[in-house]
Amino acid sequence: MSVTQPNANSSVERKILITDCADAHGLIAKITGVCFAHELNIVKNSEFVDNAQGRFFMRTELEGSFDDASLLNDLSSVLPEQNHMQLVGAERKRVVVLVTKEAHCLGDLLMKSYYGGLDVDIAAVVGNYPNLAELAAKFAIPFHFVSHEGLDRLSHEQALLEVIKPYEADYLVLAKYMRVLTPDFVAQYPNRIINIHHSFLPAFIGAGPYRQAWERGVKIIGATAHFVNNCLDEGPIIKQDVIPVDHNYSAQEMARAGRDVEKSVLSKALQLVLNDQVIVYGNRTIVF
Amino acid sequence: MSVTQPNANSSVERKILITDCADAHGLIAKITGVCFAHELNIVKNSEFVDNAQGRFFMRTELEGSFDDASLLNDLSSVLPEQNHMQLVGAERKRVVVLVTKEAHCLGDLLMKSYYGGLDVDIAAVVGNYPNLAELAAKFAIPFHFVSHEGLDRLSHEQALLEVIKPYEADYLVLAKYMRVLTPDFVAQYPNRIINIHHSFLPAFIGAGPYRQAWERGVKIIGATAHFVNNCLDEGPIIKQDVIPVDHNYSAQEMARAGRDVEKSVLSKALQLVLNDQVIVYGNRTIVF
Amino acid sequence: MSVTQPNANSSVERKILITDCADAHGLIAKITGVCFAHELNIVKNSEFVDNAQGRFFMRTELEGSFDDASLLNDLSSVLPEQNHMQLVGAERKRVVVLVTKEAHCLGDLLMKSYYGGLDVDIAAVVGNYPNLAELAAKFAIPFHFVSHEGLDRLSHEQALLEVIKPYEADYLVLAKYMRVLTPDFVAQYPNRIINIHHSFLPAFIGAGPYRQAWERGVKIIGATAHFVNNCLDEGPIIKQDVIPVDHNYSAQEMARAGRDVEKSVLSKALQLVLNDQVIVYGNRTIVF
Amino acid sequence: MSVTQPNANSSVERKILITDCADAHGLIAKITGVCFAHELNIVKNSEFVDNAQGRFFMRTELEGSFDDASLLNDLSSVLPEQNHMQLVGAERKRVVVLVTKEAHCLGDLLMKSYYGGLDVDIAAVVGNYPNLAELAAKFAIPFHFVSHEGLDRLSHEQALLEVIKPYEADYLVLAKYMRVLTPDFVAQYPNRIINIHHSFLPAFIGAGPYRQAWERGVKIIGATAHFVNNCLDEGPIIKQDVIPVDHNYSAQEMARAGRDVEKSVLSKALQLVLNDQVIVYGNRTIVF
Repeated sequence: MSVTQPNANSSVERKILITDCADAHGLIAKITGVCFAHELNIVKNSEFVDNAQGRFFMRTELEGSFDDASLLNDLSSVLPEQNHMQLVGAERKRVVVLVTKEAHCLGDLLMKSYYGGLDVDIAAVVGNYPNLAELAAKFAIPFHFVSHEGLDRLSHEQALLEVIKPYEADYLVLAKYMRVLTPDFVAQYPNRIINIHHSFLPAFIGAGPYRQAWERGVKIIGATAHFVNNCLDEGPIIKQDVIPVDHNYSAQEMARAGRDVEKSVLSKALQLVLNDQVIVYGNRTIVF
Repeated sequence: MSVTQPNANSSVERKILITDCADAHGLIAKITGVCFAHELNIVKNSEFVDNAQGRFFMRTELEGSFDDASLLNDLSSVLPEQNHMQLVGAERKRVVVLVTKEAHCLGDLLMKSYYGGLDVDIAAVVGNYPNLAELAAKFAIPFHFVSHEGLDRLSHEQALLEVIKPYEADYLVLAKYMRVLTPDFVAQYPNRIINIHHSFLPAFIGAGPYRQAWERGVKIIGATAHFVNNCLDEGPIIKQDVIPVDHNYSAQEMARAGRDVEKSVLSKALQLVLNDQVIVYGNRTIVF
Repeated sequence: MSVTQPNANSSVERKILITDCADAHGLIAKITGVCFAHELNIVKNSEFVDNAQGRFFMRTELEGSFDDASLLNDLSSVLPEQNHMQLVGAERKRVVVLVTKEAHCLGDLLMKSYYGGLDVDIAAVVGNYPNLAELAAKFAIPFHFVSHEGLDRLSHEQALLEVIKPYEADYLVLAKYMRVLTPDFVAQYPNRIINIHHSFLPAFIGAGPYRQAWERGVKIIGATAHFVNNCLDEGPIIKQDVIPVDHNYSAQEMARAGRDVEKSVLSKALQLVLNDQVIVYGNRTIVF
Repeated sequence: MSVTQPNANSSVERKILITDCADAHGLIAKITGVCFAHELNIVKNSEFVDNAQGRFFMRTELEGSFDDASLLNDLSSVLPEQNHMQLVGAERKRVVVLVTKEAHCLGDLLMKSYYGGLDVDIAAVVGNYPNLAELAAKFAIPFHFVSHEGLDRLSHEQALLEVIKPYEADYLVLAKYMRVLTPDFVAQYPNRIINIHHSFLPAFIGAGPYRQAWERGVKIIGATAHFVNNCLDEGPIIKQDVIPVDHNYSAQEMARAGRDVEKSVLSKALQLVLNDQVIVYGNRTIVF
């Protein structure tokens, strides 16, 4: 808990401690006890126990002056074996955005980071079509056109990686990037690739979800932001949202109406990830 | 359009004209022209054209004194061949409710019809378990226990029909009735059986949707009210609604939270149907 | 954190510790440390710090065998002066419901407690009109008709209290009770009277909110559940929800559509209070 | 109704007929009859009757080749006296956007019109601060800085009008323009000025709505897009939307979360107005 205002004192650092381990007696007491011994204030503490699996998760926002090594060392001495601990600094993160032709998601990310609605450093935009180069240019973000034309999937992904790697991105954001990534590519960024799928997953997996939704005659459509794993549209879900539709909507009008949900779900999910509020747990997420 | 208040004049009848035919020039003018010639006021008029399929739909709420035969005759003379016309009176409709063990949907229907929140005459409740007999009795609604124990599907449905038929219900409502109906049974009530499915269809078709939703880690759950056709959970959707969930919800807690959505979606869908606001069109509905 | 399933062991008790005190260093560590020393498992822990006011709040769900006096004694020794601590048992709570003429909120409370959708013991229903006696009788709940006719406000409230007091209710629920309570009456149940107001407060305070909403031409209407304090419609808000409306809605149709929101907001708010998830803080609530 | 696809035939024009008159018998039949006689297809027809006031409203989307004068003449011969008829072409409309310092609403309008998410021609941006000049420049939209410093209200508005008038805008959009306009200014653009207010009106009228919302402890915040009339925050409401908040939100965090609702409500309201779907009726709107 904090008796100093966040950032009231410029010498005060803020870091986030993520704990993920087998459940045991007294974990909250032990972990917060160590933090107290290190004279760190807890600004916010969120915990969750999966009783079915006996697993413990905690996110602790700390303020003070940190000796990371000694803190983590003291913490591991009170935690069960095979725990996962992470002490994350508060500096803003860097992403590379992958796109194809549609502008609405990229546009929203660029605009929000421009006016401060999203705390992120967009290092570059990479498109398998050139269409969005102009949009990236408006915000002085480097755009790389990496065509898939005439390349097999692996060669194209190789070309992508050569462009993306140097930016040392914390996360890749698929902002309506319309190609499926191979397991090899995904393995380079485990739980670090965020995709927006234009349906309320798991409904309408795969191509043409709005067409599928129209044919099924649903009364609500949605969008899903998720981490990408090896199975198409099956990674851990971060955020979902929906809007009502009715018989007046053609598949095209559903797609148009859906764009607003897609962009808002993607940027909200990204913000949660950037804030280190999301813990991946099997194929699910804990969002603190 | 109405210059008299609805029901201001006790001698004034109100009926609803549903038109469903091939699209053609001047249909609104011709249909409303005939109504005008019959000195009928249009209280409310809603129309929809499916341009892709060239099909025209209109719902017209009429007030005045009706000569049904002559009105329908004059209308058919201005409509294309093979039109479907329906002139429905405003009298309240009669339903039979099928249940298994869960009380929340039946309870909401009984309570709403009791205090006037739902304009319906619940003629009877039929359960394949006896559990809800007491609840029906509170509202003095006949309850029939038709066990499926020791009966094959057809014999059980035969037994159901013997109980249900005499009530001459306009609609059957499946209020968490947990058995699949055969095509033969459904054929007895074409587009007249309304089911509540405890998921946001087409996600999580079939059994244990909340378990499926929990395993998939969705952030939103929902319920879907639809007409029953021959394919499980695939009939025309009338109404859907959703609620947010998070990692704190176990499958059981999702199921509990979902009950409120299920009951509210079912009773809203039923009200729309009772108001003759729902037109089934292929596997979709037009909700005026 | 719990390594035993909740209620897995019948000898295990569950209690909830609510802490509300001035913020200070190490509070989470100290409080959870005391719980650990008492060999109590933390099933769930939620905390909030109001940095602006330097106030600390925590809700701790504990499992184990309790020595209440010694636990509270040990806790107070680690907390700042003038702390508020509460150790609440998990037994279901008792409420008395006040009504006037409208059945939908009372009906939903009765139905939900009947089928287990709400963990509450409805001890009695008290109405200033006799209209809802029949409804209470269906569920074998005592109904008391306490007319206000010919009584001044104080005499009427005196008569109410004589009926209500013996039930020793934890909370009073105003389920569309349409009379304003005096400060003297409210003082008898500080932060223990829950009211449902049929608008999205603070919009449309006072009488006829749906008429006001219609006249203002709003596109969304709502309902608000709040604790009652001395100012009409101004107590701490527990829960709010809304539904969309449009130009087709008359004030009467808004009122009818609003009933579903009113009843669902009231029962959700009540469930939160019954779970000891709501802490009143000035004129606001913290909902853990 | 249309038997040709919209725009299937390039020689086909599309126009929208708005009718607003005293209610009378046979209006739909007469109006659609005239359209039929002019060989105009009705693509979509929406009508509403205010029975309380005996007023009739209809929006008719027409396709064909138009003789405006003769059509309007024939229509007026079948309508009651003092009717308001409007025949609007489908060409995209022109707006001038007024801003102060906040970028999110302007940014969304610029971005959506850039990628085709909004069918509008943004002719210019006018700010009483220079802050957003750079943003407008990214999209090559003229920006005019018209400071209010050292000017009385009337002189400032005079200066604004001198800049705005030449653009002959169909509508002015106040995208977080933080100054109150005088009745004289508003009178220049009757029902043609659209404002976004950062609260769920009529809650929290005036300044600092998020601060007010935080102090009141609401659980839902919202935004309202409305036409500007002479009373602050009291014009006819076009669109509203809300998002949930909780005790964790400071007033600043509510304001930040609210930005997404503000921008989405404003652009949805603007799209409705641009589509001629909104009819102002007293202090309310009919949204077809």
